[in-house]
Amino acid sequence: MTTNVLRNEIMDRVERLQEMLREHAFDGAIFVQKVDVYYLSGTDQAAHLWIPAKGPALLMVRKSIERAKTDAALDNIIELPGFSDLPRLIEKNSGFLPRRMGLEMDVLPVNQYRTYRGLFPETEMGDISTIIRGLRMIKSPYEISAISRAAKMGDRMFEQVPLILKQAKTETDLALQLEAFYRNLGHPGIVRTRTFNMECFYGHVLAGKNAAVPSASPGPTGGTGMGPFYSQGAGFGRIIPHEPVIVDYTSSVDGYVSDQARTFSIGKLPEHLIRAHQVMIDVQDAIIRYGRPGIRAADLYAKALDVVRGHGLENGFMGYPDPVPFVAHGIGLELDEWPIIGRKSATVLQEGMIFALEPKIIFPGEGVVGIENVFVVTSDGVKKLNQFPDAVSVC
Amino acid sequence: MTTNVLRNEIMDRVERLQEMLREHAFDGAIFVQKVDVYYLSGTDQAAHLWIPAKGPALLMVRKSIERAKTDAALDNIIELPGFSDLPRLIEKNSGFLPRRMGLEMDVLPVNQYRTYRGLFPETEMGDISTIIRGLRMIKSPYEISAISRAAKMGDRMFEQVPLILKQAKTETDLALQLEAFYRNLGHPGIVRTRTFNMECFYGHVLAGKNAAVPSASPGPTGGTGMGPFYSQGAGFGRIIPHEPVIVDYTSSVDGYVSDQARTFSIGKLPEHLIRAHQVMIDVQDAIIRYGRPGIRAADLYAKALDVVRGHGLENGFMGYPDPVPFVAHGIGLELDEWPIIGRKSATVLQEGMIFALEPKIIFPGEGVVGIENVFVVTSDGVKKLNQFPDAVSVC
Repeated sequence: MTTNVLRNEIMDRVERLQEMLREHAFDGAIFVQKVDVYYLSGTDQAAHLWIPAKGPALLMVRKSIERAKTDAALDNIIELPGFSDLPRLIEKNSGFLPRRMGLEMDVLPVNQYRTYRGLFPETEMGDISTIIRGLRMIKSPYEISAISRAAKMGDRMFEQVPLILKQAKTETDLALQLEAFYRNLGHPGIVRTRTFNMECFYGHVLAGKNAAVPSASPGPTGGTGMGPFYSQGAGFGRIIPHEPVIVDYTSSVDGYVSDQARTFSIGKLPEHLIRAHQVMIDVQDAIIRYGRPGIRAADLYAKALDVVRGHGLENGFMGYPDPVPFVAHGIGLELDEWPIIGRKSATVLQEGMIFALEPKIIFPGEGVVGIENVFVVTSDGVKKLNQFPDAVSVC
Repeated sequence: MTTNVLRNEIMDRVERLQEMLREHAFDGAIFVQKVDVYYLSGTDQAAHLWIPAKGPALLMVRKSIERAKTDAALDNIIELPGFSDLPRLIEKNSGFLPRRMGLEMDVLPVNQYRTYRGLFPETEMGDISTIIRGLRMIKSPYEISAISRAAKMGDRMFEQVPLILKQAKTETDLALQLEAFYRNLGHPGIVRTRTFNMECFYGHVLAGKNAAVPSASPGPTGGTGMGPFYSQGAGFGRIIPHEPVIVDYTSSVDGYVSDQARTFSIGKLPEHLIRAHQVMIDVQDAIIRYGRPGIRAADLYAKALDVVRGHGLENGFMGYPDPVPFVAHGIGLELDEWPIIGRKSATVLQEGMIFALEPKIIFPGEGVVGIENVFVVTSDGVKKLNQFPDAVSVC
């Protein structure tokens, strides 16, 4: 992460953040969440990143300072012996202690926050999370390129599924082969999420009626998982001919994920499932038709719902028994980024947004059909980054 | 999780917790962290678990209520429409609103805490995290059985390594085959951690000098990982004869992890590495000799350090350049449980504690040797749960 391209990328992110800090009357912010630190510095080492509203940033590293110095694209990188050194190091760097400081209140644990409270008794502390999430929501050409490559990695994986599916006996049997394929291409395995308690192990590989089992997942699908201790995704349910197999697995390049899903079957699916799958493709077509900078995400969601209602398929659309109230979510360094294209979204689409659109429909007792693809918002519309065919692949 | 055995297990946990709540003058506690909720209810669905100091617990479920009713071993399971319903539902269940309520302040994000503050304006809120971590530190026979089976799963995986190692070209090439082997045995893939920002993708598979690259990992080893965006564990470093390959990969049964490491090599290792590896086994022998209920963890750590110093090997022991100040950590439903056997540990060993002992030594430019095994504290000492031989396996 120390090429000039990346140095400029990081510098630009920090400068845009500083503008937002000034707009929101923050004197500076401390970032500690690993992904925010990586986004703003280029290293995922355990560190506190101080960004003043004006002046140079300071990366204070707990572990490992050697790696941080190799990887980070910032000039000021020092060791942080302990939390109690923070005020001294910040004051030395910036010449002041912040009167109003931003913290990532959406992820920061209470006890850690209280430590900061004790260390900065005169400082007012505000939530920086909507600012950093808003900044990260708009992707740079560098980021769009990384996610495009992740999308291509996904396409390569999906090409493998028909070759493996007939021999795979269970969901897990299929999943573990796809995981191995991804790892060989450099997938780090870890898929990061921001939401408290949210978990993702690659995603969901689900077959037949087990795919329709609901879960705690914030997405439309569930699955049995391995048991009540991890109750989503692939389990040991058998893969049976003429039942839908949905593969919804995240790829990852340079830390950026792509989130893609396709439906497969051994032998033909029943007609009503094929028709429902086609309606999910129609939903995507509607988003492609209406998606452009300036449109309200909630209006785009309404267009999606219109298509589904037009076919009388709203029951089971995006989850059963409890549908999730969105059809697309942002992706990037984390799986659960902004924007959300949903019923209550206040977002207006902007150039540089990237979202994973996942129209899916659950048939209890039968399974799940549908697709997921990644789109980037460009000046003249939305552009799909995945290429693998959307139709049900019959093996 | 609804057999009688499990129902009694959960009932016992809740009762022990309620005793501790009364001891610490809490009227009750809300648990939301997924693993705590699972430990106290038997389901990992998205839920709030209210446990009063006296009287029946109440599981309030966001998603999925169907799964929670199937899996949880509690009698009172209801839907939680929204956060704002919490006070009403708690008062209806217990007949009172708590004057003093416990929350998991070590993991709870500030914004969510502030929501509770607004909903319970008259309630004093205290940190329940040391209580629940203390409760979970002492394992029941049921839990010891699950971790023993996870340890056996680990042994089976380690038997595979010599069969794979000679054909594996890179760390990741080896890692992905071990991951597939584990998944086939029912490993959920996910390895849960409690510490903010801590990540684990199975663990570390590291070869030669790359194993000595430091990382943000709170453990002794690092590795290159896939890049600055995920900078620990297996990368694409080549596996070379006569260099140590350390495999430190977690197994998992019924949600309980076992954490085990072994050192392998293609052809013999240099003598000084074999000797150092033997010293790591000697450290384990010292822990076996002195480990028993009643001994202070800090004294046990000192015994380990004595062995290492006796051989002049303290430089690189447990990390380089910055050693971690412990030789063992608790495991259970999470990888980073209590007790810690380290320099500053205030813990005294008790029957039912389980820890992963991981004496390892880093040789910069050469690699890492050492072992990791899981021990349970019994009435007459500590008992090792893993069986695979500790010596370096030469393939």
